[in-house]
Amino acid sequence: MKNIKNMAIKIQSTNYEIEIGSILTSSFYDLITNRYQNRKKIIMVDENTHDCCLEFLITTYDSLSEAEVILIPEGEENKVMEVCLQIWSALSEFNISRRDLVINLGGGIITDMGGVIASLYKRGVNFVNIPTSLLAMVDASVGGKTGVNLDHFKNQLGVFSNPIAVFVDPSFLSTLPLSEVKNGFAEMLKHGLIADKNHWDVLKCMLPSEDIFGEKIISESILIKNQIVLSDEKEKNERKKLNFGHTVGHAIETYFMSSENTIKHGHAVAIGMLAESYLSNYKKLLSDNELKEIETTICQHFEIPDLAQVDSNVLFEIMSNDKKNFDSKIQCTLLKEIGVSLIHQEISFVEVNLSLEYLKSLKH
Amino acid sequence: MKNIKNMAIKIQSTNYEIEIGSILTSSFYDLITNRYQNRKKIIMVDENTHDCCLEFLITTYDSLSEAEVILIPEGEENKVMEVCLQIWSALSEFNISRRDLVINLGGGIITDMGGVIASLYKRGVNFVNIPTSLLAMVDASVGGKTGVNLDHFKNQLGVFSNPIAVFVDPSFLSTLPLSEVKNGFAEMLKHGLIADKNHWDVLKCMLPSEDIFGEKIISESILIKNQIVLSDEKEKNERKKLNFGHTVGHAIETYFMSSENTIKHGHAVAIGMLAESYLSNYKKLLSDNELKEIETTICQHFEIPDLAQVDSNVLFEIMSNDKKNFDSKIQCTLLKEIGVSLIHQEISFVEVNLSLEYLKSLKH
Repeated sequence: MKNIKNMAIKIQSTNYEIEIGSILTSSFYDLITNRYQNRKKIIMVDENTHDCCLEFLITTYDSLSEAEVILIPEGEENKVMEVCLQIWSALSEFNISRRDLVINLGGGIITDMGGVIASLYKRGVNFVNIPTSLLAMVDASVGGKTGVNLDHFKNQLGVFSNPIAVFVDPSFLSTLPLSEVKNGFAEMLKHGLIADKNHWDVLKCMLPSEDIFGEKIISESILIKNQIVLSDEKEKNERKKLNFGHTVGHAIETYFMSSENTIKHGHAVAIGMLAESYLSNYKKLLSDNELKEIETTICQHFEIPDLAQVDSNVLFEIMSNDKKNFDSKIQCTLLKEIGVSLIHQEISFVEVNLSLEYLKSLKH
Repeated sequence: MKNIKNMAIKIQSTNYEIEIGSILTSSFYDLITNRYQNRKKIIMVDENTHDCCLEFLITTYDSLSEAEVILIPEGEENKVMEVCLQIWSALSEFNISRRDLVINLGGGIITDMGGVIASLYKRGVNFVNIPTSLLAMVDASVGGKTGVNLDHFKNQLGVFSNPIAVFVDPSFLSTLPLSEVKNGFAEMLKHGLIADKNHWDVLKCMLPSEDIFGEKIISESILIKNQIVLSDEKEKNERKKLNFGHTVGHAIETYFMSSENTIKHGHAVAIGMLAESYLSNYKKLLSDNELKEIETTICQHFEIPDLAQVDSNVLFEIMSNDKKNFDSKIQCTLLKEIGVSLIHQEISFVEVNLSLEYLKSLKH
């Protein structure tokens, strides 16, 4: 393969670039062929990217023909330290040094977990992210958070560690089922709600089917997240805005994780955004009209799960263990209006209960 | 306890201070009483510090009376991710938030492993190190390296992560047996050999018994390491000097780790320094006289282990997996003269063999 003139949209993050567009026109070729010439490459894949994306990469780039491929089994239950340990042993057997390169090719589980694996192995091997799901493109691959789950708590273990580059190629989205596209769509809606009414206004008229996700709208969404991250990399203040929908959403996701009816992250965040928009309205921040607008948009795309049997005590306990809390109080991000969010808003057990009742009312 | 005027020697490292002297006169009181007022404190101890140091801390400082204490079992075999996982589950059960404080009270295993535990839990809880062994004081607690072992390879997993403060109180050394003091003495000798002939000249006349280790000589040794770390935090070049004695030493330590005759880290480094001084002389860098001086000094304090049965192929394989290598070549630090070291020196299988023969010759 020859290097083609670089045409991708570039977004500068902390100390690396995010390139959006065809990977063929990105700097990926130069990176693996020149900067990492004679270095070993390790490609982390999940079952889906193993079948749908890996062959394209390996046959396109000569310098990947001898890459070691590591398959990480699907599912949140495998996003744990025990699986990382198996992979670290494999890297050690492959004699991978800290000058080699890890390539994370997959959705959020691969980029989160591959980030942990690379960042801890010999105190840090460089890695690049090639997110293949919409969720990983607009969310997981930007911001330097890596993580694995612990005892059913999501992303409890990890480090802040940046990839050396991120390549966002929307053509990989054609491999995804609609439910996976919606998973990322929820985070895009969130970016609009917390920080950019224009982004929200564009998205609310869209249908999250694969063909509408082009470079432009994805870039806009990444740009919003990136700006927030740049202003507060370690999540002391501003970055907490990105947690909108995640306090209730994470709890619902975690709650269902141990049941048969698991809920995808984006779906849970969409439900969480409904609950937290309701609380924003309940606390006299968000207007009735805007709550209605959010409700209509989200319910158009996301089904409310059956919450009749959900024990709100358990949900509250999960929230209490959230990384974002301190002083044992539950802290969440609420909306002042569409496009404007407020961090450090306390919510009580009674309010959690009210938001659950609200969600149940939407179901009927 | 009242706050006492701060009298400790202070060394400024990257973004934290190392205070050397009685902990009673350090800023530790202010830290736990004011900065971490109303925050939970978790004290990591090993069996030795649990019995010898913990009570002193807890009874001296009121704000530690309700601290959670986590006992990490002794031994390199417990310095592994599997044990970290148990501790993370415990932290999660204690509802520890990322605003709380981890206090690592112990030797190098506690500071290395406590660093990993704190740095990964919820993507990072602040921690302080209170090293209680000479090795941890002069080596492990300075420089931001954290780590645990993987499949008998030492410190293969970890991150660069700095404590918010280090408190070096030499009075804790009175709890140590002489073999443990020697363990740290080896690293002090190394600091002299690689970067400071004056430090070496003072140390070579000392006997490593507990009563001679005062604040001054410990401070000098820490200062040497700190200066090297400051010039190259991520170990790209200059910091590799600190690996002198560790290429052969680590391999010998790892080799014996799976046998009944385990060798302490400092002991292994002392043997490694002999081997690598020999190689420095063999490669026409170090003079015969200086090799003799190093040999006499080290052999006065450290016994050469029985290497008759050691398989040099296995030793070489362990070295090949060293974090410091690249391009599958073994890289080590050698001495040009006492106080002057050279990084990126390649050594061959034949040379490893020669150095083993040299060590065996010293035994007889």
